Amino acid sequence: MNDFIKSIKKRDPAAKSTLSIILTYPGVKAVFFHQIANFFHLAGFDLIARIISQTSRFFTGIEIHPGAKIGKNLFIDHGMGVVIGETSEIGNDVTIYHAVTLGGISPSIDSERQRHEKRHPTIGNDVVIGSGAQIIGPVKVGSGSRIAANAVVVNDVPEDSTMVGVPAKAIKTGNKGKFRPYGVDQEVIDEK
Amino acid sequence: MNDFIKSIKKRDPAAKSTLSIILTYPGVKAVFFHQIANFFHLAGFDLIARIISQTSRFFTGIEIHPGAKIGKNLFIDHGMGVVIGETSEIGNDVTIYHAVTLGGISPSIDSERQRHEKRHPTIGNDVVIGSGAQIIGPVKVGSGSRIAANAVVVNDVPEDSTMVGVPAKAIKTGNKGKFRPYGVDQEVIDEK
Amino acid sequence: MNDFIKSIKKRDPAAKSTLSIILTYPGVKAVFFHQIANFFHLAGFDLIARIISQTSRFFTGIEIHPGAKIGKNLFIDHGMGVVIGETSEIGNDVTIYHAVTLGGISPSIDSERQRHEKRHPTIGNDVVIGSGAQIIGPVKVGSGSRIAANAVVVNDVPEDSTMVGVPAKAIKTGNKGKFRPYGVDQEVIDEK
Repeated sequence: MNDFIKSIKKRDPAAKSTLSIILTYPGVKAVFFHQIANFFHLAGFDLIARIISQTSRFFTGIEIHPGAKIGKNLFIDHGMGVVIGETSEIGNDVTIYHAVTLGGISPSIDSERQRHEKRHPTIGNDVVIGSGAQIIGPVKVGSGSRIAANAVVVNDVPEDSTMVGVPAKAIKTGNKGKFRPYGVDQEVIDEK
Repeated sequence: MNDFIKSIKKRDPAAKSTLSIILTYPGVKAVFFHQIANFFHLAGFDLIARIISQTSRFFTGIEIHPGAKIGKNLFIDHGMGVVIGETSEIGNDVTIYHAVTLGGISPSIDSERQRHEKRHPTIGNDVVIGSGAQIIGPVKVGSGSRIAANAVVVNDVPEDSTMVGVPAKAIKTGNKGKFRPYGVDQEVIDEK
Repeated sequence: MNDFIKSIKKRDPAAKSTLSIILTYPGVKAVFFHQIANFFHLAGFDLIARIISQTSRFFTGIEIHPGAKIGKNLFIDHGMGVVIGETSEIGNDVTIYHAVTLGGISPSIDSERQRHEKRHPTIGNDVVIGSGAQIIGPVKVGSGSRIAANAVVVNDVPEDSTMVGVPAKAIKTGNKGKFRPYGVDQEVIDEK
C-alpha cells in the first residue's frame, strides 16, 4: 500500500500528500472496491460482485467489471468514465487516465458463445493510456507503450511504442526512457 | 419489458441474469427514468421533467433530455457520460455505448430561433454507436449502420454503413449480417 | 450572476428558464463549488480545497482542480467527465462541453520539479471547446477559437481558428462572426 501511494506521488505532480491521495483520489477507491468485487466474482457470487462494482461506479465514476485481472500499482487518474471489461488483463505499474475504455467488440456475433471467450484487451507493464483512449477487442498492448489521448487501438501494439490517432498508428517505437505519453510526442507530429 | 431484457442478453456477453440486468444496468434505469421525464415534458411541465432527467444523470451518469424521442429496446451499455439532446430521435433496437453524444451545433447563431428547430441527430433502427462517438447536428444515421469508437459524425450516414475517424468517413457499406461494430472492421483498416 | 444566467440562455437553445438553469445545470454548480475550493486553495488549505473539489465532482461529474484560474461567465454544458488541471487558466465567456480535458503531459519526467511548473493549457476569451476534446500540455488557445468535438490539441492554437482531428489541425482561420463550433465547419470538411 505504501509503495502504491509512493508510485502515485511519482506519477502525479498534483499529488500533495498521502492523506490527500487516500481521501480524494477516486482511482484509489475504485481499485480497492475492485479487489472486493473480484473476490466475490472468483467465489462465484456474480450478482454481489456486480452490485459492488456498480456501487463503486456510482461513487468513483469508474466501472471495472469484477472479472478483470489487475496487476500491482494500477493508478487510474481522475477516472470519470473509465470502463474496464470482464476479460481485461492489466500488468503492473500501469497508468490509466479518465474516459479510457478497455472494451469488447460488440454486439457479439454470438453472445452465448462469447460469454466464455477472451473479448477484452491485455495490457503489459508500465503502460500509460491517455484520456479518452479506446482499446477495443482482445488485443495486446506491449509493456512500456504509451497510448495517446483519444487514440483508438484495435490491433496489437508492440512494446515501447507510442500510438496516436483514430484508428491509432505507431508514431514511435523504442520509448525506453522517454516520457511524453499523455498527449503525443510533439516533434513527431510536427513532422507529419 | 421481457423482450427488452432478452435483447440485452443477446447484445451483452457479460450479462449474466435478468436480476442482474434490472438491478445493475445503469442504461436500463436511464431509459426508465426518461419515460417518466418525457411524460412530464409532453404535459408541459418542463422544470419537473428536467429535474427528473438530472436526477437520472446523477444516479446513472447518463443525460437524456426529456424531449428526446426514443424507440423500443434502446440499450445504453455502461453509459457514463452519454448525452442525448432535446430534439434527438432514436429508432428501435439501437445500442449506444458510454460517452456517446447526440449533440447540437452550438453555440447557436440565434438561440431564440433555434429553440424551436430540430438541432440534434435522427438515428435509424438497429444502429450501434461505439464508445466516445460524437454525432453532432440534425444529421440522419441510416438503419443498420455502425459508428466506431471515438468517431465524429457531422454529415448524414447512409444505411448499413460503418463510419470511423475524426471526422468520420465510411469505410464500408452494406453491413447487412456483419457484426464488427464496436471497434472498426480490422481488415478494412489494415488496407489503408 | 444575472449576466452569467443571461449568457447561458444565449448559448444554450435548450435553456428554458432562470430557475431551471440554477437548479438543473451541473456546470453552474461546478463553477460555484470551484470558487469556494479556489478560496481555500489560495489560503493554503490544500486538503480542504481538494475535498470540496471532489465533492463537486461527485455531484456534478465535473472535476476542476482548486488551483485552476477561471474567468467570467465560464459555461460548462452537460459537463460529465470534464477535467480541468491545476495550472489551467481560462479567459472570459468560454464554453466547454462535456468530456473535455485541460490536461498535463504525464507521467512527468520529474514530478517533484513539475509540481511548481505550468503544466496545463491557457484558454483565451470566447473560446468554445467541443465535447470530448483533449487539450494537453502548457499550450495556448487563442481567443475566439473553436475546438471541435474529440479533437486533440497538443500545440498552440492561433486566435479565431477552428481545430479538428487527432491530433488537431487548423481547418479554418478567421472565425470572427462565424458560429459552427460544436461540431466542425461542414463545408471545409466536405472539401477535404
